[in-house]
Amino acid sequence: MGRIHPVILCGGSGTRLWPRSRASMPKPFLPLVGHETLFEQALSRAADPMVFAPPMVVTGAAHLAHVEAQLGTGRDGLVVVEPAAKNTAAAIALAAHLLAADDVMLVCPSDHHIGDPAAFVAAARAAAALAGEGWLVAFGITATAPETGYGYIRRGEAIGDSGHRIAAFVEKPDLARAEQFLADGGYAWNGGIFAFRAGDYLRELASHRPALAEAVREAVAHGRREGTRFHPEAAAFARIEGESVDYAVMENTRSAAVVPASMAWSDIGNWQALHEARDRDAQGNVAIGRVELVDCRNVLVESDGPRVSAVGLSDVIIVVDGDEVLVTTAAGAQLVGKLSGAANQTAS
Amino acid sequence: MGRIHPVILCGGSGTRLWPRSRASMPKPFLPLVGHETLFEQALSRAADPMVFAPPMVVTGAAHLAHVEAQLGTGRDGLVVVEPAAKNTAAAIALAAHLLAADDVMLVCPSDHHIGDPAAFVAAARAAAALAGEGWLVAFGITATAPETGYGYIRRGEAIGDSGHRIAAFVEKPDLARAEQFLADGGYAWNGGIFAFRAGDYLRELASHRPALAEAVREAVAHGRREGTRFHPEAAAFARIEGESVDYAVMENTRSAAVVPASMAWSDIGNWQALHEARDRDAQGNVAIGRVELVDCRNVLVESDGPRVSAVGLSDVIIVVDGDEVLVTTAAGAQLVGKLSGAANQTAS
Repeated sequence: MGRIHPVILCGGSGTRLWPRSRASMPKPFLPLVGHETLFEQALSRAADPMVFAPPMVVTGAAHLAHVEAQLGTGRDGLVVVEPAAKNTAAAIALAAHLLAADDVMLVCPSDHHIGDPAAFVAAARAAAALAGEGWLVAFGITATAPETGYGYIRRGEAIGDSGHRIAAFVEKPDLARAEQFLADGGYAWNGGIFAFRAGDYLRELASHRPALAEAVREAVAHGRREGTRFHPEAAAFARIEGESVDYAVMENTRSAAVVPASMAWSDIGNWQALHEARDRDAQGNVAIGRVELVDCRNVLVESDGPRVSAVGLSDVIIVVDGDEVLVTTAAGAQLVGKLSGAANQTAS
Repeated sequence: MGRIHPVILCGGSGTRLWPRSRASMPKPFLPLVGHETLFEQALSRAADPMVFAPPMVVTGAAHLAHVEAQLGTGRDGLVVVEPAAKNTAAAIALAAHLLAADDVMLVCPSDHHIGDPAAFVAAARAAAALAGEGWLVAFGITATAPETGYGYIRRGEAIGDSGHRIAAFVEKPDLARAEQFLADGGYAWNGGIFAFRAGDYLRELASHRPALAEAVREAVAHGRREGTRFHPEAAAFARIEGESVDYAVMENTRSAAVVPASMAWSDIGNWQALHEARDRDAQGNVAIGRVELVDCRNVLVESDGPRVSAVGLSDVIIVVDGDEVLVTTAAGAQLVGKLSGAANQTAS
């Protein structure tokens, strides 16, 4: 088997991490955990040339400058510039058309955090091995808490050493069901990481979403390559009805498989998730910038300028960014994307 | 009896209301409740010319510009400029020397809030009547909660219609004692508002604190008047050991009396006290500036610029002022004065 082809999907706005994540500088391009940005980390963990081919990045025109700046110069790889955001099924199809049919793709979001990159690589190799046999493989991330914010994958019968057929994709559950899933042990989180051969994916897409598949095929056929950029043809691409790879392909194919991945993963889906992904002090606090904390526990404070003084708080998040100040409880963090400041941004 | 002479004491730093109250613009000069500043309100409620003579203000050089700006032009009154802060016994003695011996002084802090100014005037008239008979009279503010942040006055035998002798001054109690005081009904808060004849005060001061009294006498004798300002002589004033009027005079005189005052008083001693003195909405929230609140209760937010978005908070205070952001629980508000930002200000 040849090297694995990383396909980094770089869209999304990250409004739930407002005001740090903004339309003009969204989540993947921010150094939210450590010194590298989430996008740079996504590149780094799939950068071993013994395992991985140069990456392909699928993004939109609004993010292109950030992508290319953070890709760096002298790095191989192709950037596919979508004329519009059409969700993941189309983005992956674009990449698949630009690879050989037998190439194994590893589709990765660019805005998640993985604390154990070696475990990621191991899972990628296991997934690629199954993909080489014709399976469409999802990472099944070991569930460590009854999360209600993630979709779940229910394992079916075993395939080989570590893989399983997928018995079902399960929508985000309520807390009672999430606790049941965790106790059951047969469920894993769906982290949106997939491996399959390019030809297998395109065949399944054509089978289950023929119009979408055809529109992407035309957009690539009439697209143009400029240096390390590929521009799909806009009129064909505009006809696509955006749909996720989960709905369009993974839930419909009879070849869906899952491999286990225990790699300290987080989707950094909101400020509380980010807080939990970071190194905290003995009181559970994280302070970035000029910060004074008195009698605080499990508090996250970050400021890009003004000093923040906090007294007596527990489970609170404070973010100062330019002309915006956010103060939310941990539980309220999931509502941040609906705030006026987050929702009413002009996309750049 | 002649008109009452208001003596407004205008010192103090108000560090517990940092970062709004700063060394360069302290608490009395800020519009903390309503549109007038606390100092302007202190002047306004003792401004009825049928009852009150023009005010005398005792302040320090650091505050002089604020005092004169907020006194306004065309207003009568004298500003006594202290060469150094020497606490209230000396400040009141300065004013007493500049009045006639039979003048009744009404000593008022400049950084409290009184929600019922008419009740204040009524209590002032009752206190002045007793002062005219030779009593040194404290306002006994009707206790409405078991406050541990105030000193208390215990009433003794009745004098006339509404006054009482003072049986004892009681230091700030713990909660159990404060609850006992409240249940007892014979205790009132000491709000630092006093009425007495100038001559009576100076005589009592000379009796109990002869050195202090003599130093003030010399500082006035060698002082100089410039327009509406009076400058005590600095060398004599420097010899004073600062002491409060409570310790130096009121706890020692045999002529201490108290009149009841039920006037929606608050010392605005910290952010939580300020929150309670303001008009709140149905959820108990106060928002000043660009503020969005979601699922918040009993929250105070004020910002002088940046937008503040708050989610899920209860009993929290958020203040944005220039390059400082304060976030504290209601209970933590009393610790604000000890924060680095509040404590390390350079006095101007």
